[in-house]
Amino acid sequence: MNSIGKRVLVSGGGGFLGAYLCDELLRRGDIELLVCVDNFWTGLEANLAHIDDARFRLVRSDIEAFRSDIDFHEAYHLASPASPPWYMSDPGRTMSANLVGAMRILELLAPGGRMCFTSTSEVYGDPAVSPQPETYRGSVDCTGPRSSYDESKRATEALLFETRRTRGLDLRVARLFNAYGPRMREDDGRAVSNFIAQALRGDPITIFGDGKQSRSWGYASDIVEGMARYFWRDTFDYDGPLNLGNDREVPVLEIAEYVSKVTGNGRIVFEPPLPQDPSNRCPDLTIARRILPGWSCGISYEDGIGRTIDWFRARLADPERLVAAGGG
Amino acid sequence: MNSIGKRVLVSGGGGFLGAYLCDELLRRGDIELLVCVDNFWTGLEANLAHIDDARFRLVRSDIEAFRSDIDFHEAYHLASPASPPWYMSDPGRTMSANLVGAMRILELLAPGGRMCFTSTSEVYGDPAVSPQPETYRGSVDCTGPRSSYDESKRATEALLFETRRTRGLDLRVARLFNAYGPRMREDDGRAVSNFIAQALRGDPITIFGDGKQSRSWGYASDIVEGMARYFWRDTFDYDGPLNLGNDREVPVLEIAEYVSKVTGNGRIVFEPPLPQDPSNRCPDLTIARRILPGWSCGISYEDGIGRTIDWFRARLADPERLVAAGGG
Repeated sequence: MNSIGKRVLVSGGGGFLGAYLCDELLRRGDIELLVCVDNFWTGLEANLAHIDDARFRLVRSDIEAFRSDIDFHEAYHLASPASPPWYMSDPGRTMSANLVGAMRILELLAPGGRMCFTSTSEVYGDPAVSPQPETYRGSVDCTGPRSSYDESKRATEALLFETRRTRGLDLRVARLFNAYGPRMREDDGRAVSNFIAQALRGDPITIFGDGKQSRSWGYASDIVEGMARYFWRDTFDYDGPLNLGNDREVPVLEIAEYVSKVTGNGRIVFEPPLPQDPSNRCPDLTIARRILPGWSCGISYEDGIGRTIDWFRARLADPERLVAAGGG
Repeated sequence: MNSIGKRVLVSGGGGFLGAYLCDELLRRGDIELLVCVDNFWTGLEANLAHIDDARFRLVRSDIEAFRSDIDFHEAYHLASPASPPWYMSDPGRTMSANLVGAMRILELLAPGGRMCFTSTSEVYGDPAVSPQPETYRGSVDCTGPRSSYDESKRATEALLFETRRTRGLDLRVARLFNAYGPRMREDDGRAVSNFIAQALRGDPITIFGDGKQSRSWGYASDIVEGMARYFWRDTFDYDGPLNLGNDREVPVLEIAEYVSKVTGNGRIVFEPPLPQDPSNRCPDLTIARRILPGWSCGISYEDGIGRTIDWFRARLADPERLVAAGGG
């Protein structure tokens, strides 16, 4: 096999999931160059510090501003904050990263190149149906406090599917449900990392609302495996967006209680609900099961949260080493 | 009154509604400068040719690329194709005009300046409730062939409301339902202009689908009057997006039959439905009636279509003069 290797672009490769994706890409033998573009707004350079591979190049930049003469065979567009406190703090930047970032990447793709986009279950908003199939059109308040994230993911899907319709594009859109695991920021602001960080600090575990809101809890390595299988295979008999997540629907309170039990920090306190926090979230995985046979989020929350607690605990003890180690 | 007059920006001022808005703005005595930015993708320079006012400046540019040292007191963001064949032909450009255009305009606003955005009833998609109140979250397929328009309007609303929440912004968002009238392009591609142009050419009147799909038919001067009253008044006890349209819900077939009757061209033909054409559309005007007392779409479709036919007929006879004349 002496064909020329592939040139690959990852935006947001310093993020929680982005760094795992870079690791997976570098396991492939057919890649000659992996350019990771990240502005480290929510990503962390430490997430990439362990990478020692001559094919890897890190560019510190907003993806919208990234200029290059390279034409990429594959692009993975992950650049975006994913946690409400982060995207709510700078909605314009969030929308620019997603949509203007996607426009920029389309200009950098080689003819016939593949565009892979990490969309989100948040395109379904506060869903009126459960589980949510990919055909569900969603219930998003486009004027609400979560709209910068939800609507920029929806708009970026629109841009990409419509670009495919009008100009042709090898396209993969994954709608990721909640993911958690090692490499999350302590100040990420989502439930699992909040609970663990609070418990390990000896603070009360804070639940916003009554804790009955359900979520899909996908362990990072399961989600990334699903992404890799979906993004890397060449042909499917399906060309719509694909749900990737855990369809075991678990209330937030149950997660808090489990973290409390495992860490031995028993105190849970309740705060007023976050604005427009969805009441439920569960992927319909019918299509994922069909086109990715054998794939599932097999790591239970009990197992995954245990591993995540171990990692957070170790990071508190030796931040330098453990951020880099990733985990899994 | 010797206070300094206002500097005003209109994007898309050469469009069907944009040109009426420019006319209305130039009737105001408190404006010292009106800058109209249009790339004339779907707008027409002829729509502005009648303007003879030293305060008026026309800039031929994409709004995203418009640079200026002027800080504007008011901005009206209308730049966007509004008809399916146009926006479906270049979805990326449509999304850029709306969202990136809005980002650009926000940078040009003077502190405390007012941002006015013409959103659309298309944010409701193919609605499951009728009439549609502003709180209805919509039913839009964000991967579908109408998504570049629908989702870029939704995303631009999100950008603006979230900018207001995080940084403060004097904001008006009007959700315009179907409008028609003089100055529409013959090749606009929406129902009224299609029917009239076909009938006056002696061609069959084409209906896509069975014609039972309903629409709100707002005559241009009524819609523009609603916009002016909403955009120009300083205070309201309501700060959400505002429906503006005609709540007399009329099927497309009835409009075709009326055009047929008035023009004496009796032949109506049916073609397959357009992809994801909404089945119904009717504004809930409860809020508009409360905050804009006395305003309504008072011009019936019978009257408005009659005027529009007269204008199209006259334009066919003397294109130069009648495009400029506008009508009303």
